[in-house]
Amino acid sequence: MEGQHEQTDDARAAEGQHADIYDEDGVISQSFLVHVGAAIADRDTLTLKRDVGDLHQSELGDLLEALAPEQRRALVELLGTDFDFSALTEVDEAIRLDIVDNLPNAQIAQAVQELDSDDAVYILEDLDQEDQDEILSQLPFTERIRLRRALDYPEETAGRRMQTEFVAVPPFWTVGQTIDYMREDNNLPDRFSQIFVIDPTFKLLGAVDLDKIMRTKRAVKVEEVMHETRHAIPATMDQEEAAREFEQYDLLSAAVVDENERLVGVLTIDDVVDVIQQEAEEDLLRMGGVGDEELSDSILSTSRSRVPWLLVNLVTAFLAASVIGLFDATIQQIVALAVLMPIVAGMGGNAGSQTMTVTVRALATKDLDIYNAWRVIRREIGVGFINGAVFAVLIGLVAGTWFGDPNLGGIIAAAMIINMFAAALAGILIPLLLDRLNIDPAVASAVFVTTVTDCVGFFAFLGLATWWFRYS
Amino acid sequence: MEGQHEQTDDARAAEGQHADIYDEDGVISQSFLVHVGAAIADRDTLTLKRDVGDLHQSELGDLLEALAPEQRRALVELLGTDFDFSALTEVDEAIRLDIVDNLPNAQIAQAVQELDSDDAVYILEDLDQEDQDEILSQLPFTERIRLRRALDYPEETAGRRMQTEFVAVPPFWTVGQTIDYMREDNNLPDRFSQIFVIDPTFKLLGAVDLDKIMRTKRAVKVEEVMHETRHAIPATMDQEEAAREFEQYDLLSAAVVDENERLVGVLTIDDVVDVIQQEAEEDLLRMGGVGDEELSDSILSTSRSRVPWLLVNLVTAFLAASVIGLFDATIQQIVALAVLMPIVAGMGGNAGSQTMTVTVRALATKDLDIYNAWRVIRREIGVGFINGAVFAVLIGLVAGTWFGDPNLGGIIAAAMIINMFAAALAGILIPLLLDRLNIDPAVASAVFVTTVTDCVGFFAFLGLATWWFRYS
Repeated sequence: MEGQHEQTDDARAAEGQHADIYDEDGVISQSFLVHVGAAIADRDTLTLKRDVGDLHQSELGDLLEALAPEQRRALVELLGTDFDFSALTEVDEAIRLDIVDNLPNAQIAQAVQELDSDDAVYILEDLDQEDQDEILSQLPFTERIRLRRALDYPEETAGRRMQTEFVAVPPFWTVGQTIDYMREDNNLPDRFSQIFVIDPTFKLLGAVDLDKIMRTKRAVKVEEVMHETRHAIPATMDQEEAAREFEQYDLLSAAVVDENERLVGVLTIDDVVDVIQQEAEEDLLRMGGVGDEELSDSILSTSRSRVPWLLVNLVTAFLAASVIGLFDATIQQIVALAVLMPIVAGMGGNAGSQTMTVTVRALATKDLDIYNAWRVIRREIGVGFINGAVFAVLIGLVAGTWFGDPNLGGIIAAAMIINMFAAALAGILIPLLLDRLNIDPAVASAVFVTTVTDCVGFFAFLGLATWWFRYS
Repeated sequence: MEGQHEQTDDARAAEGQHADIYDEDGVISQSFLVHVGAAIADRDTLTLKRDVGDLHQSELGDLLEALAPEQRRALVELLGTDFDFSALTEVDEAIRLDIVDNLPNAQIAQAVQELDSDDAVYILEDLDQEDQDEILSQLPFTERIRLRRALDYPEETAGRRMQTEFVAVPPFWTVGQTIDYMREDNNLPDRFSQIFVIDPTFKLLGAVDLDKIMRTKRAVKVEEVMHETRHAIPATMDQEEAAREFEQYDLLSAAVVDENERLVGVLTIDDVVDVIQQEAEEDLLRMGGVGDEELSDSILSTSRSRVPWLLVNLVTAFLAASVIGLFDATIQQIVALAVLMPIVAGMGGNAGSQTMTVTVRALATKDLDIYNAWRVIRREIGVGFINGAVFAVLIGLVAGTWFGDPNLGGIIAAAMIINMFAAALAGILIPLLLDRLNIDPAVASAVFVTTVTDCVGFFAFLGLATWWFRYS
């Protein structure tokens, strides 16, 4: 039992080291950063190789992001061949490019051969064509063909994200033969959870999960235990759609096939998890009026990327202003209207964005479809009326008391009900309509919804006031 | 080669059936729904068992959501023991409760025994205590203990989400023994990707991935190939934190241990993918001012859940209104101010929410930390100034021309620069501060940011105008 105790001690030591790297908030700890910084300053390669060389790629990635740019480059240089290039898949694009641009192409070519093909593609795809070609030309033939094939598929497709290393066997092999083959072949992928069954032309016949292999007697033929691969993913499928297949069918990995149904790679759940995160993030950023930006982007490129959205909002803001302009005579007589009008518009805007957020998300997750659309529309209208009534009473009382004018209270209450109803309608119908027109509702809904709630809010409140004070 | 061809034909047939269930938008197809509806109306059990009984749990879940409530209950009744209860983990909570409440507890107890423990817990946890106890009391002893243990852990912890079925072997077993054991034991979990190594008291010693077992010679002892399990998850760990471990270390499954480091279950990536989706969704909904609501919630409960956010916004709206109230004399003289003031406030609000969205998301993904906070703050201020200047010129020109008054153009331009600067500061500092105070920035940031941009916008514009027209 001696070995066993050693193992747990090792595990504890590793745990301790792990705890040292991060502080309690899950951020690289100050003390570890100072330690690494000092070793870099001293060019103490031994210490760095010991304390940084064995980090998990994501830990090394976090460390790189915490270091200053000069330290980062020095660390990569000092670690030399001990630097784990897969860490570059864990950092911001700007940091990745900064590090790669500072290395000779020959060294990158060397490093890329050690990586799984999906990681290699991840690093190569952002380089300019010239560097990419030079690095590829220095790779062995098979490696070059494999990476080229993945790089030839468009960005954000399954083919671009797939790993080209996989285990494939002919259907007439037995389970025993398959296990023996795996014991002897050294060219297996780092990690895999299923084995593919192919014909001599690489046409995909089926797949077997490793746990199934484990449960099966050695003499059984693979074709007898393989399952149909109805979730094979065409290489040109959008990565988001592929991720949805993984989610729906709880897949750990899936075969990627070309247009002739030949096996070209495998998509694994860890890449899919990244895609899911990325897509959820895109929806959130789009709803906030931000495009594809990263924290490491420069001031100028960030400014530029945010201008279009602000520009669209500017146009709609002038539209709302011109609605107010229709009633300038009334406002001159009763200034209280100018004071109160942003309340009506603002509350409508908030109610509208509540409905819109729920709708956009439900459309993205396919929870909202033709089967429940009517029910949800009716529900939102109901919610709009109820909350409209609640806040109409509240705002009417406060406003009427503030300006000592019950008429004003009544007018703002009526305007609130109208605008909350408009907000509910706009919040659900605009995203539904955009989705029908194949426009991403996350991008475009907010601007239309607030235009409606601003214009209706101002028009209802100022229009009612004009009418009331003119005819009473 | 005969069998092989049959297999591909089978696969194609399955593909065809799959294509029939969904239309091109990925929604249950009308024709399939009509077909199932007719079979339910005819009480045609044979057709239903053939066409619905073999569906994947997620397909059956989608079908249940598309059916009308009476059809749903009838389908479950007609399928009887052929109804796959795991489909209930794929539907809205309201639908799940509706179906389960319509079934006798004895039938649920029967069905629950067929499920993986994580699915069983998922269905049981929403039932009221009485039904839960009655169902559990009808289960065999071991099953009852296992489910009870998972249910005893708090909601949203790893212990609640774990599966209590796992494969565990002693360290002195050889790889060959382990494979033989798996070939013979019929009590294995449905799917697994690693084997745990434990001592006689169930203390976790290590784990071996299945692919590692495959590559290793039969005579090698498990303890020689096992790796340390430094990613063992305490059962009380929050599911979001557990999901982050999975993401960071690309795990497929992880051991769940109790407070004595004894193995109690396994958390698998498919459950973690659901958690990741759910957490991303929560952030999005919170930023849109919506709490934990589902599409199937009733009008009243939806109304109620959205009121608090609207109430907070009401208070801040009155705050902004009272800022306008300070300048009512000026507005009475120059009504154009009332027309233009929402533009200044609105543009600031949009710019602020851009910055805030990026900040909240970066905090959630831990991309923003003490190491880059200063750089990001500086960047946002820079962006605020540049976009402030750009839109100041634009709005100044349009407003000045509209009202034929260059002074007005100059005033609104100056107010825009001030408000865009305030928006940038508020957009980054408020989420950072809330995060420091351990308040979820996704929930609370928006209201504070728009309060700042409204109040600063109105104050800067109306204040500058008052000062200018008084002293010129």
